[in-house]
Amino acid sequence: MKSINLAVLGLGTVGTGVVNLLKDNVQELTRRSGYQLNITHVGTRRHRTDIDPTIKQSADLMAIAAADDVDIVIEVIGGTDVAKEVIIHAIKHKKHVVTANKALLAKHGNEIFALADKHGVQVRYEAAVAGGIPIIKIIREALAANKIDWVAGIINGTGNFILTEMQQKNRKFGDVLAEAQALGYAEADPTFDVEGIDAGHKLSLLASIAFGIPLQFDKVYCEGITKISLQDVVYAKELGYTIKHLGFAFRRDHGFELRVHPTLIPNSTLLANVNGVKNAVMVDAHPLGQSLYYGDGAGAGATASAVMADVMDLIYVIEAGARTDDDTLADVPHLAFIPEELSDTRVLPSDEMTCGYYLRLTVKDELGVLADTTRILSDNGINIDAIMQRDAHKSGLVPIIILTLPVLEKQMNKAIKEIEALNAVTEPVVRIRLESLDE
Amino acid sequence: MKSINLAVLGLGTVGTGVVNLLKDNVQELTRRSGYQLNITHVGTRRHRTDIDPTIKQSADLMAIAAADDVDIVIEVIGGTDVAKEVIIHAIKHKKHVVTANKALLAKHGNEIFALADKHGVQVRYEAAVAGGIPIIKIIREALAANKIDWVAGIINGTGNFILTEMQQKNRKFGDVLAEAQALGYAEADPTFDVEGIDAGHKLSLLASIAFGIPLQFDKVYCEGITKISLQDVVYAKELGYTIKHLGFAFRRDHGFELRVHPTLIPNSTLLANVNGVKNAVMVDAHPLGQSLYYGDGAGAGATASAVMADVMDLIYVIEAGARTDDDTLADVPHLAFIPEELSDTRVLPSDEMTCGYYLRLTVKDELGVLADTTRILSDNGINIDAIMQRDAHKSGLVPIIILTLPVLEKQMNKAIKEIEALNAVTEPVVRIRLESLDE
Repeated sequence: MKSINLAVLGLGTVGTGVVNLLKDNVQELTRRSGYQLNITHVGTRRHRTDIDPTIKQSADLMAIAAADDVDIVIEVIGGTDVAKEVIIHAIKHKKHVVTANKALLAKHGNEIFALADKHGVQVRYEAAVAGGIPIIKIIREALAANKIDWVAGIINGTGNFILTEMQQKNRKFGDVLAEAQALGYAEADPTFDVEGIDAGHKLSLLASIAFGIPLQFDKVYCEGITKISLQDVVYAKELGYTIKHLGFAFRRDHGFELRVHPTLIPNSTLLANVNGVKNAVMVDAHPLGQSLYYGDGAGAGATASAVMADVMDLIYVIEAGARTDDDTLADVPHLAFIPEELSDTRVLPSDEMTCGYYLRLTVKDELGVLADTTRILSDNGINIDAIMQRDAHKSGLVPIIILTLPVLEKQMNKAIKEIEALNAVTEPVVRIRLESLDE
Repeated sequence: MKSINLAVLGLGTVGTGVVNLLKDNVQELTRRSGYQLNITHVGTRRHRTDIDPTIKQSADLMAIAAADDVDIVIEVIGGTDVAKEVIIHAIKHKKHVVTANKALLAKHGNEIFALADKHGVQVRYEAAVAGGIPIIKIIREALAANKIDWVAGIINGTGNFILTEMQQKNRKFGDVLAEAQALGYAEADPTFDVEGIDAGHKLSLLASIAFGIPLQFDKVYCEGITKISLQDVVYAKELGYTIKHLGFAFRRDHGFELRVHPTLIPNSTLLANVNGVKNAVMVDAHPLGQSLYYGDGAGAGATASAVMADVMDLIYVIEAGARTDDDTLADVPHLAFIPEELSDTRVLPSDEMTCGYYLRLTVKDELGVLADTTRILSDNGINIDAIMQRDAHKSGLVPIIILTLPVLEKQMNKAIKEIEALNAVTEPVVRIRLESLDE
């Protein structure tokens, strides 16, 4: 039987998941592909006794990446230094690469993909975004005939777990974060998850393949969930909204918006009902309309499923390539669009982004403050969609909640500055973005 | 620039959608593929003045399917007679084929795919199931490393529209059907939609690619929604369930279950919240777990999106094929598994299927009838999950609702026969299947 040789670099959660998948499903993989899939090498610092002894183990990742008995290098070590070095080494030795490393690709993907194109190999990265949800394949291939207008995704399971607990059980951010760490959903240093960096990495990949633009993580506006208070979660719920941490990529007339932030979305949307550590991505495309993809965004099984789907795809690439001396690949481009067609249309700075807002003001219970506030919004061209004034706190201070229609961020910044200058407004205005997700 | 020539056979809703997609998105298609996509022929009975005059129009479909300036034949005429003849003719002339024709594939797919393999061409059919949701690509490619345990799908938009209206607005089946026909969601003869035939065609395709079994539509248990009464919709809702028309493919120890029928599913599941004409498919796989795919299941735009995604994929197949004289394709097999690995594991007859049930009994308000009923269920090894007795109707008759845990259908048949033999039971027992969709 024809066979494909794999090297798995890294035996953490994901690497072990890949080894186990192959053990469990080897028959199914062969029934589908007609190939025997073998792991010939694993890259690991410590020798592992639980691995099939016919698999070579070594800590020398560079040697494995260049080994003759390797067709595909699976990089699941994480981090951006060694991983980059090893992937480049593998590419130069004409190995196809499969990686789950979003941080690496968000930062160095343009360089890595160009090198892969030059050497006639593919770098596949289905597992880098939304874990087991095949969103890379869906956007690169299944929606290839569409013009994509926007992508909106819950693409960080830790953040979604925390917000879900706050929303459903009226718990506070800090308490839930501590539980998430205890459950293993959040890292000891949760910065990447709760500050939106991880989601930003993933969003930059989604935006590139949706619009055909180079990777530009540095232009993604990233805001995390650390400032979301239980109070705002509760007010949002009363108004018919759920606060989710979402990544958005919008096509606008003058450029693209790439942003990651907490967002009020209507309770009735499917995204608002994606709970716990689950991920989901919604795509609005022409002529398809809206479609949504939901599943596990992390974990050994989900990630291994995505990694091995890439391997299964590469079998056809390898098989086609073996029959020709031609070095150009007959396969979908790395960033979905052929490199010379990537667009230099700019990514808009946050000032020029447009969205609706949830505003929470804390004011002294004085005559005229509501009139002043609404006048400021109106003078700045901001339309109010809903307004809710609550009973005074014991302190005598009154919370006012305002939902606005979409507005340019710089106008909102100006309005908020003016509102905060009012005598009756005692605290900084809390603002959370709002998207209706309409078609 | 390299180019690909397409023939569109049939200019109904879908065919026109394909022509329009190409007009709207030609630039995007070229940016992605590097190819110029041209429609060289359309097959139409009446000459159409709204079509680009450089496109040749003809009613001679056989001639178009064999024309030299055609690389891919898009069959969107529907029906199973002419469509089959034309597709076979195209295959024999070594044209790749894209079709949206579920009825044709469900009945003749095994023969058509074998012929395509023999001639070294592909027959693609993304549009045949769930419209714009790329479920064929997802199961064939994205989940290729998984062992799939079950698939559950809302795969008929007309049926889902009718049930949604009944559920949300307490409307009656006949009234909603009439509206659906007026809106164009349902055909003048709605048999295929409301009797579950259309969903059965689609389910047979899903089951084949999920499990690696030949197409066997004749073994799909098909039940429609015509017998669903508003009363049952309301009782189900009170018990926390929504009635949806679902297609199921289950892997069991002794075979596969392929069935299409109205089903109670918990309100809390995402599938229960898929409303109107939308479609969604949930897949339970190892090691991925559960994932769900949602979008438009019909309409010009959604179907054209799926058809043209197949065309985009075929570009790589054609490009790879052009570089070799080899007649075997380096591409995913038609039914996801290589033909010699398709399994002859049997499809279970309905007697041997297992699922939960909703039962509605209409009984005389007599002492002991509930005891008799529960004893019969218990004697037949059937566990009760919930029971609800409502107030007597004016007639003095009392409805009793029982939800059971999963049970073998033949045991349920026997129990129902015994219950109907009770003196106090005045009408046939209404039964609707129930699935919890647990992982």
